[in-house]
Order: sequence, then structure tokens, then C-alpha cells
Amino acid sequence: MKVELSTDREAGRRRVVIENVQPEIDCGRFAIKRTVGERVVVRADIFVDGHDRLACLLKYRTAADEHWNEVRMEPLVNDRWEGEFCVEELARYFYTVEAWVDRFDTWQKDLAKRVQAGQQVPVELQMGTEMIRAAQQRADGQDADRLGWYADVVGGEGSEAERIAAALSDELAVVMAAHPDRRYSTTYRKELPISVDRQRARYSTWYEIFPRSTSAEPGRHGTFRDLERLVPRIADMGFDVLYLPPIHPIGFAFRKGPNNARVASPDDPGSPWAIGGREGGHKSIHPELGDLDDFRRLVKAAGEHGMEIALDIAYQCSPDHPYVQEHRQWFRERPDGTVQYAENPPKKYEDIYPFDFESDQWRELWNELKSVIFYWIDQGVRIFRIDNPHTKPFRFWESLIEDVKDRYPETLFLAEAFTRPKVMYHLAKLGFTQSYTYFTWRNTKHDLVEYFTTLTKTEVREFFRPNLWPNTPDILNEYLQFGGRPACVTRLVLAATLGASYGVYGPPLEFCDVQPREPGSEEYWNSEKYQVRHWDFDSPDSLRDLMRRINRIRHDNPALQTDLHLDFHPVDNHQLICYSKQSDDKKNLVVVVVNLDSNHTESGWVDLPLAELGIAADRPYQVHDLLGDGRYLWDGPRNYVELNPHVLPAHVFQIRRHVRTEQQFEYFM
Amino acid sequence: MKVELSTDREAGRRRVVIENVQPEIDCGRFAIKRTVGERVVVRADIFVDGHDRLACLLKYRTAADEHWNEVRMEPLVNDRWEGEFCVEELARYFYTVEAWVDRFDTWQKDLAKRVQAGQQVPVELQMGTEMIRAAQQRADGQDADRLGWYADVVGGEGSEAERIAAALSDELAVVMAAHPDRRYSTTYRKELPISVDRQRARYSTWYEIFPRSTSAEPGRHGTFRDLERLVPRIADMGFDVLYLPPIHPIGFAFRKGPNNARVASPDDPGSPWAIGGREGGHKSIHPELGDLDDFRRLVKAAGEHGMEIALDIAYQCSPDHPYVQEHRQWFRERPDGTVQYAENPPKKYEDIYPFDFESDQWRELWNELKSVIFYWIDQGVRIFRIDNPHTKPFRFWESLIEDVKDRYPETLFLAEAFTRPKVMYHLAKLGFTQSYTYFTWRNTKHDLVEYFTTLTKTEVREFFRPNLWPNTPDILNEYLQFGGRPACVTRLVLAATLGASYGVYGPPLEFCDVQPREPGSEEYWNSEKYQVRHWDFDSPDSLRDLMRRINRIRHDNPALQTDLHLDFHPVDNHQLICYSKQSDDKKNLVVVVVNLDSNHTESGWVDLPLAELGIAADRPYQVHDLLGDGRYLWDGPRNYVELNPHVLPAHVFQIRRHVRTEQQFEYFM
Repeated sequence: MKVELSTDREAGRRRVVIENVQPEIDCGRFAIKRTVGERVVVRADIFVDGHDRLACLLKYRTAADEHWNEVRMEPLVNDRWEGEFCVEELARYFYTVEAWVDRFDTWQKDLAKRVQAGQQVPVELQMGTEMIRAAQQRADGQDADRLGWYADVVGGEGSEAERIAAALSDELAVVMAAHPDRRYSTTYRKELPISVDRQRARYSTWYEIFPRSTSAEPGRHGTFRDLERLVPRIADMGFDVLYLPPIHPIGFAFRKGPNNARVASPDDPGSPWAIGGREGGHKSIHPELGDLDDFRRLVKAAGEHGMEIALDIAYQCSPDHPYVQEHRQWFRERPDGTVQYAENPPKKYEDIYPFDFESDQWRELWNELKSVIFYWIDQGVRIFRIDNPHTKPFRFWESLIEDVKDRYPETLFLAEAFTRPKVMYHLAKLGFTQSYTYFTWRNTKHDLVEYFTTLTKTEVREFFRPNLWPNTPDILNEYLQFGGRPACVTRLVLAATLGASYGVYGPPLEFCDVQPREPGSEEYWNSEKYQVRHWDFDSPDSLRDLMRRINRIRHDNPALQTDLHLDFHPVDNHQLICYSKQSDDKKNLVVVVVNLDSNHTESGWVDLPLAELGIAADRPYQVHDLLGDGRYLWDGPRNYVELNPHVLPAHVFQIRRHVRTEQQFEYFM
Repeated sequence: MKVELSTDREAGRRRVVIENVQPEIDCGRFAIKRTVGERVVVRADIFVDGHDRLACLLKYRTAADEHWNEVRMEPLVNDRWEGEFCVEELARYFYTVEAWVDRFDTWQKDLAKRVQAGQQVPVELQMGTEMIRAAQQRADGQDADRLGWYADVVGGEGSEAERIAAALSDELAVVMAAHPDRRYSTTYRKELPISVDRQRARYSTWYEIFPRSTSAEPGRHGTFRDLERLVPRIADMGFDVLYLPPIHPIGFAFRKGPNNARVASPDDPGSPWAIGGREGGHKSIHPELGDLDDFRRLVKAAGEHGMEIALDIAYQCSPDHPYVQEHRQWFRERPDGTVQYAENPPKKYEDIYPFDFESDQWRELWNELKSVIFYWIDQGVRIFRIDNPHTKPFRFWESLIEDVKDRYPETLFLAEAFTRPKVMYHLAKLGFTQSYTYFTWRNTKHDLVEYFTTLTKTEVREFFRPNLWPNTPDILNEYLQFGGRPACVTRLVLAATLGASYGVYGPPLEFCDVQPREPGSEEYWNSEKYQVRHWDFDSPDSLRDLMRRINRIRHDNPALQTDLHLDFHPVDNHQLICYSKQSDDKKNLVVVVVNLDSNHTESGWVDLPLAELGIAADRPYQVHDLLGDGRYLWDGPRNYVELNPHVLPAHVFQIRRHVRTEQQFEYFM
């Protein structure tokens, strides 16, 4: 306060207060997230002493812009104001708020009251004239002429009625508002950041596959070329991100055998996450997968089919990684001179050496790890799935993502952090584009509603973009183990419709391979993590058609491409969950009903809030099940549903409704 | 982020994250409020990558301290930590949080797990020894000796069992924790302010009286000497603040007559808020009240009876105020050369000239207005009730209160802002010690519960200290008009028990003078604002005894001296409201039940959450009605109450209970 008064000569006359600007993450320390073309709606408490009227602007610019764009904010209730704009560039944006006492507007409104009360207003007209003349000085061209004309009339010799009519005219209000006196305006003390990504950051559909399990001949180690042949098939199913576990040379030291056996036979391929061997480390390719040219061909083939390759970046080393020899100081040394392996006492993971981020050479380490990303960017990769980011320092990630996006703003990072909520949120705040979630373990209606309400109805929605996975190579949830094929379908539909971004650990889900390593385990029997598998991609038992259909539905319905407008609705059966999603412009509305019981047919009455969903209450409306292709005529809020999990456990309804817009009724699908 | 990395050589190794520190008002822009002796409980989200254990400190100091005091924080759940301290000085305090990875603690806990799993730990013992030796370097005296001894044992030649026992000992943990390695600690990026006031800021009991209405002889204008004779009477009733409307010379121009008549007769005394006349302005005393010596005597007499004088500061002028001649530039000039009077179009208040805070001479104006406060401070006044602060700029108040409290930190300011909630909250944030509230208009159970929940269960409680008034010279609520004496009692008891600070516009409430100027008006008939009144202070109809009793109850029960622990409890009758208050140490518990119906006896069943209130559920407990003096034995959560408003509309129960403390059952009243 004192500082302001001494540095700002007019601080004492800046009477307007601006506070509680939202969104604002941790006092502006972190950016909110948007994608190109999305809206940013900003609200703020803005008020002044006394009864003067205010003019409030929402201001925004990209980091490169010198000047602010300005949008007028409108009052809501209780001193809250709102404005909005669209972000159009792949850039970092900033926004802030400016407001001032609008003396002319105050005067005009007061004049109307005086006139209505039958008061004489000669002095008031003089005051207005002075303000119009002052605005005339600030204006030029046509506006200056108009203001001159108004000043002449309002301050002139005409009848009082004539002068008042001019003074109260809407045109004068508009021209005056265009040339305000902003000398004593207040600007919010922070410029709040927005991280703007490309659209795939918001809406993406992932298919994870182990390249080594893609050979057409059983027993042979798969290659990038094998995977390349599968690209059209996966693209045809509607996936747009093809995500590969680590593709680097695999260490031999302490290599694990099938089903995580402590000892591997010489033929066992080892885990792709035990990165680094004599053939190289994080910038090398496992020779059995092919070479760099093969990889580039794969990237290109994917691109030609509208897909991108996502690479798994796991910053850890096998004892055979070249770093261990060349940069011993990046690892912690034990007092006996050996290198510290990974541990979670009493468990030991002797095949993995973690980096020592507290090393004296932390800067060199950071730079090398960043260079890994740039290396793969040079090979055409723009999406990285980061393995266990929560076991490396937060500042490292913030710095890495900042550096990468400075040069390649189109780059996307998915955080594979299955850990405590605040750690997950923090990783998202500091820059991760998307995040894995607890979805995999949220299988009951109560848990799903609670979790997705937190993700989409709180501040979390501004920085945390969920990417939902029914399964991963590390997580075979017991819901899938016990529910079999219906459960796989249920979880697929939930992921695809609850989340604008979702992914599948492809072959196991597609082929309903849900056998655990042992009862109570979330590991797969014969997990691909430790061995090469062979999948029959032509099997008629595949969920391929269903995946194609649900991804097509996502493609056709903008409501499913955003997480901003998700609402849960009551059903009088706790095994049935119902929710709606709407596009940001509210034109597209999808209502989903899913049977969470993988064994039995369930039925119940769905209760939709018609007014909130923009459905006219006085006429029937058609619901079109895009998944099962049924069409039903519904009437009123309560309607009956019945779902047999062995046929199809879900409805994905597109709602055809009459929507009232400002001008007219429009018919939207 | 980038800046930190370039300016802090170790930024990359500071792995701990501290965020969401609470309380924190508007990102630390404003101070939380406490009184001397009160606790400050601070919570923060603190976490680190990986699985290392943390050490977290809450740090605090006064503005004058060079060094921080440090208190260990303890983990709650979900990465939340908590610490607390007491503020002991009348000063501005700051607090912040520091945390670091506690490698020794991590090591000790891991060692225990390894040992339990039967692992060999020779290398681990070496690692521990190194850490103990490093701590020994940081320690001195006895601690250094102990650490040396432990290093010798843990790293020595003894049996592994012996070495492990020493390594895991609690004593070692304690000594190591006293000499931590804080090189890579993280300190929260803000130092959050606390405004510490004296206790009367939190707990005060106000009696408002017009000095001119205190003469013992009907018809004579009262004086400070008359009021002085009433001081013992008012003090005996348990009030500790005697608050006077403006005591300055009253202007003649446009003076209002009785009941706000537009024209006054020559004998009419005018409104004390039309400040300034030929005898002076804000630093002068209305001659009919006495002189400065009389005023000082009054201040002294009040002090001798444990009371303080509070002055009403209304920054506005009658047209006769000396400022209007001497500082014409502090007022807005109308184009016709006249001074702008107060308006709320179409209403005109020609007897009042507001200051023009946008004047070119705003700094001179501010300084003069501040000097008014200092003038009365020099006369012994330390409490100011500020009239309509919401019609003067916020920054002015912030600057004024800062300047005054820099020199006289014991000064208290009560904001008389009856306006929109955010404006009221903002005035509290920027420094007002206490605030008027909407209490006067909250007369139903629903409204009371909703309002007081907002005031005491949200962040508002950190900066907004409510001062509750059943009535003021401007507000005679219709609840009082229609409810008569029982309503006066009800509102008195509500104010005195819902708020740690409350006040009464004394004589009208005491004598139940509740006749409005006209139906629908909140003005009094024959309001003291415009005329001298005479009160029979010996009248047997006075609520004097009740006021004495309720104020005594407040004095004896710390639960009623704080607003931090107010909880509402269900009653199955919407005319009965029930709430409890507890002292901060939870030792004192008061349960209040009030009949809001001023006409009829109401009864119902009160439902108390025994566990939350620390009442043992398995035995009866005594409730002692301190107001009516009844004693009842209650049993279980649900108990019957019946209140006749014409006898006493409220119970104020002190609860005698067995409270379980950590060590034993204690018996508290």
C-alpha cells in the first residue's frame, strides 16, 4: 500500500477495487489450460466506494503481443463481473482486468432519475457538457465530430427537453463509452497466464501397443515394420495416438523373466523399462525393433493415417546403460562403492538405477534428460507419455516442459503419475498437458460421480486434463478380471464418454485378455512387460467394431470432445449411471446411460433436468442411441431404460431438441 | 521458474513443494486478524517427489523481529500439514512455512523395514553413520557429543543388533531432528501478515448514547458532565465501550427539524452528523456539550470504570464547516460555482457536503482527515466508529488505519458500512477492526443460521469481526416495532451470545422505545438524531437488570468472547433457534436456545451433537440456565425446551460435562 502510494502519483485516486479474479491458479503462479479456439470466461469482483457506475474491461494478449486486446465485462449479481474471449494461437496468453469509474454513465443514469422526478437540471446539463467536451478531446475523426455536435446541443440554447433528449440518447452513451477517461483506472495487479495447446491436448484417443508383440508370425519378435502394417487397422478404429512403451535397448543385468521372474533365461527379452544396454540408452532404439529409419517410417505412416506416435519416456537406467559408466556422478553412490538401485524398502529393484536429482551435477543431468526429448522431437515425435513423473523433482518437469514448449509449443506431455491427488494436480499445474487418473479404480456409481465431479466442477478443471484408461500394462483392475467381456465394454464406453481423452492398452482390452498373474494381483498373466506376445488381430472376438463405433461417436459429437460440461443425473438403480455432456456452445447434447453390473440386466428410470439441458418440457423429444442405433421418443424428465450387459451395457443418446436461442427456436442435433 | 533457477544456485535441488497455505487472504495481500494471546493455526499442502519423509516448520515473527520463531508442523491426511503458535504482542506479525526432505528420518524408517524383513544392512548402517557425522558437524556441545557417540556405535565394530538398536533409537531421532540439513529446504514464497489487536478488538460490549439527551432535567441540553454521572450506571450494566455520536459543532445551513423536517426552528439542535459551524469542525466540540476539559474528564471517568469512549468519525461537512471556506478545493464545484452537496438522485442532502476524494489536492485532504484521528487520540480516545466508510475510497482507509496503527497499535476502528457484502468484507480486509453487520435484519432462524455460518465458517472469519447491533439510531427494525419488549429481549440475547462483540443503541433498547416515525419506516419517532430527548434512567421498566446479567454471563464465559467456535443445532420448531459456542481451548461450552416468536410460547426438542461437543453420551449432564437460573439434568442428544417470551425468551445454558483429554477425564464447567 505504502509503496504504491509513493510510486504511483495517482494511486489515491484509483478508487476501484478488483479482486477474486477467476480462474486464477495458486495466485497466478500457474497457467490455466486451453486449446486453440476455446473460450476463456473470466469473472472478478469489481466495486468502488459510493454509488458510481463502473466500466470494466477484460484484457488479454499473447506473450509476444505488445498491446492488450480488450473486451467489455458485464455485471452479474453481487459485484461480480464477467467477460470472455477466445484463444486463437498456439501460444502463452495473459489476461488481466482493468476498471474505472464511468462518470459519464453515472451522470446519464442520474440525469434520467432527476428528470423523471421532475427536477430542473440546468447545472447537470452543464456538467454533462463538460464531460462530452473532454471526451471530444480524446476522440478524433467522426467520433470527435459527433461529440462536438452533442456538446453543442446538450450545452446549447435549445429547449431543455431537446437538450435532455440528446443527453440521454443511446448513441451518445455509445460514443462516450468509446472514449473513456481512464486516468484513474485500476488494473488488477497480476497478469494471469494461459497455456494454449493444440486441440489434441483436449481431445485425443490413445491406443497403446508393444511393438515387439506385433509380428504376424507367432514366436518372432515384432518390429516397427510389423507395427507399420497395423497402422491402418488401428487408425480405422478411430484412434489418433499410437503409444509405444520404451523402444530403447534393454539391459541384461538383473533382467526379469516372464511374469516378473527374478531370473531370466537367455532368450527372455526383458522389460522395456529397464532402459539402456551396450547398444545405447534413451536416444537409441532396441535393435530387434528395427533402426531409426524404420522408426521414422512408422512415424510417417501413422501421420498419413491421421495418427501420431507417442513415446514413453522413463528416466531411469538399467545397470548396463551407458550413462552409468559415463556419468557415474548422476547416480547416488553407496558407501560400498556400488550404485544405488531403486528401492521401496524392503523391496529392491536391482535392475533399475534411478538418477540422483540431488547430484552436484544436477544442471548437467537436467540438460541431458531434456536433450532426450529434443532428440525424439527431431525424429518427428510430438507426444510423450512420461513414466512416473512423481518420482522426479517437480521443478525439473516444469523446466523441461517450459523449454520444450518454448521451441515446440505443439508438444504434449501425458503424466503417468498414479499417486496422491495433490501430487497429481501439482504435476498438471506445472505443465503436463494430460494426466492419468484414478478412473481405473472408480467402478461404482458413487465413486465415479464423486471423482468426476471433482475433476470437472472444481478449479481442477482449469489445469488438469484427465486421460482415462480402462487398463494399462500395470493395471488390470479386478472389475475387468471378474466381469469379462461385458466389463471390458462397460469400461471402454465409460472412458470414451466420460473423458474427452481416453486410451486403451489395446490388444488386451480388444481381445478381453483379463487373466491376472495371480488372484488379487493387478498384473496380467504372461504380461507383455516381460515377454513377447502374439495377438490374432483378425480374431472375430475383437471389440474392434465397438471401438470403431464409439470413437466415431466421439468424432461426430463435440459434446464428447470437452470435459467442461459433464453433469450426472439421477437413476433409481445404483447399478445404472447416467450423465450428459454438452459442447461448449451447448448445441450438441449427449446423454449416456451405462449398466455397471457386468452380469445382470438392469433397468430403471432416468431423471433428466430438462430446463438445464435446454429440452422443452412441453413436447416429446427424440433420443437416438448412437451405440445400439435405437431411436426412442421420450417425454418429460423421467424415462425408462433397460440394459443387458451381454448385449450392450450402455446407451449413448444423442438428444434432438428444440433449443431456444435469443432470436428463435433452432433445431439442434 | 526460470528466474528462480538463475538466481538461486540450488533451486534445482529444492524438491519440496509448499502450497495452499491457509489462512491466506487474497494471496497474502491482506492480513488475518488476531488479538493478543490468540492462537494461529496454519495448514499447508507440503509434498515432495518420491517417497522421502519431510520435516516442516511453521515460522513466525513480528515485523520488528530479525529472526523467525519456528514450530514443527505435523502431518494430517492427504499431504496436509498443520502447526500453530500464539501471538503475544500488539504488533504486526508474519508467518511462513519451510520444509525439506528429512533424509535421516527417511533412512531410519526404511532401516526398520529392512530389519523387520530380515535383510542384512551393513551398507545402510554406513550410510546412517555418514549422516550422523554430518549432523555432528552442525551441532555443538552436548548434542555434538551424543551424535559422536551414536556415530561411533552405529558405524562401529559392535554386533549388528547393537548397531541397529542405536540407529533406530528415539533419542537419536530427536537429536538428529534438532540439527537438520536445511541446505535444500523450500521456503513458501510469501510472508503472510497478521494484524494483532488488543483483546477488546475481539470481545467488546458497546453502549451508544447521545450526550445531549443525558441531562437529568427535562428540557435542558445534556452535557459531558451529565453523561459523566451516568458512567457508573452504564459500567455497572457490563458495557465496556461508551460510544458517542459526533460531538462537534453542528451547522445551521439547511438544518433539519424534528423527525427530519425540512425546516428547523431556531431552537432545534440539528443533526450531530451535520458537522461544522462557526465554532469549528472535526477537531472542535459542540459548545452546548461542554469544552475539551469536560471531554477529557469524561474519558477519564469512563476509564476509571473500565470503559472506553468511542467517537463517531463522519468525514463530511455541513455547509458551515470551516473547511468549506478554507479548503474549497477539497469539495467538488458545480459549474454554477456552488459546492456539490450530497445526493442520491433524485434525493438531495443539501445540509451535507461530501469531500471530493478525486481532488487534485487529495494528499492534503488525506493528511488533514488523518490528523482528525490523531487529534482525538491526543485527547485519550482509542476507539473510532467510522460513519459510512463505504462512501470514501478504500485506499484512503487503508492508508489512514496503517498510519494510525503504526503509532498507536491499540487503536480500534469500527466500520459502519451497511452496504453490499463484498464492500463490507473489503473494508474489513483493509484494516477495520470490527464491522457492523446485517444482524439487524436477520430475524428468522433460516436467515440467522445462513448469515452466521458465512461469518464464522468461511474465510470471512479470518478478517471480519462482526459487531452485532439490535438497533442503531438509523435502524429500528420492524421486528422490534411489532415485538415490543419481548422482541427487545430476544434481540439483545441473540446479539450478546451470537457475537463476541455487540452493541446497543442504549436508551431506546433499554426502555423499549420502539415507535417508528411512520409505518414502514426504520426511523424512530422523535429520533434523537434531530432533537434532544429525555430518558428516565431510574425507570423500573428498564432492561437494565437483564443487560447486566447477560453481560456478566459474557464476562464469565470465554466461549462467548470468541466467534471461532459457533455451531447451530437442530430444533424441531422453526421459531426456536439453538446454537453452541465454545472457547478456543474447548473448556467452556455454552448452549443457547432462543424463542424467535415474540408473542407465543414455543416448545420443541433440541438435538445436540454430543460427541462434537465433548459430552459423554453414556451419562446425564447438567445444563445450567445462566439467564433464568434454572438447572436441568439432560440425558442424550434430544431434550425438551419451552420458552415463554413474556417471561424470558431464551435459555443460556452453561454445560457441565466430562471431557476426555489425552490423559484423563477432566470435569469442566
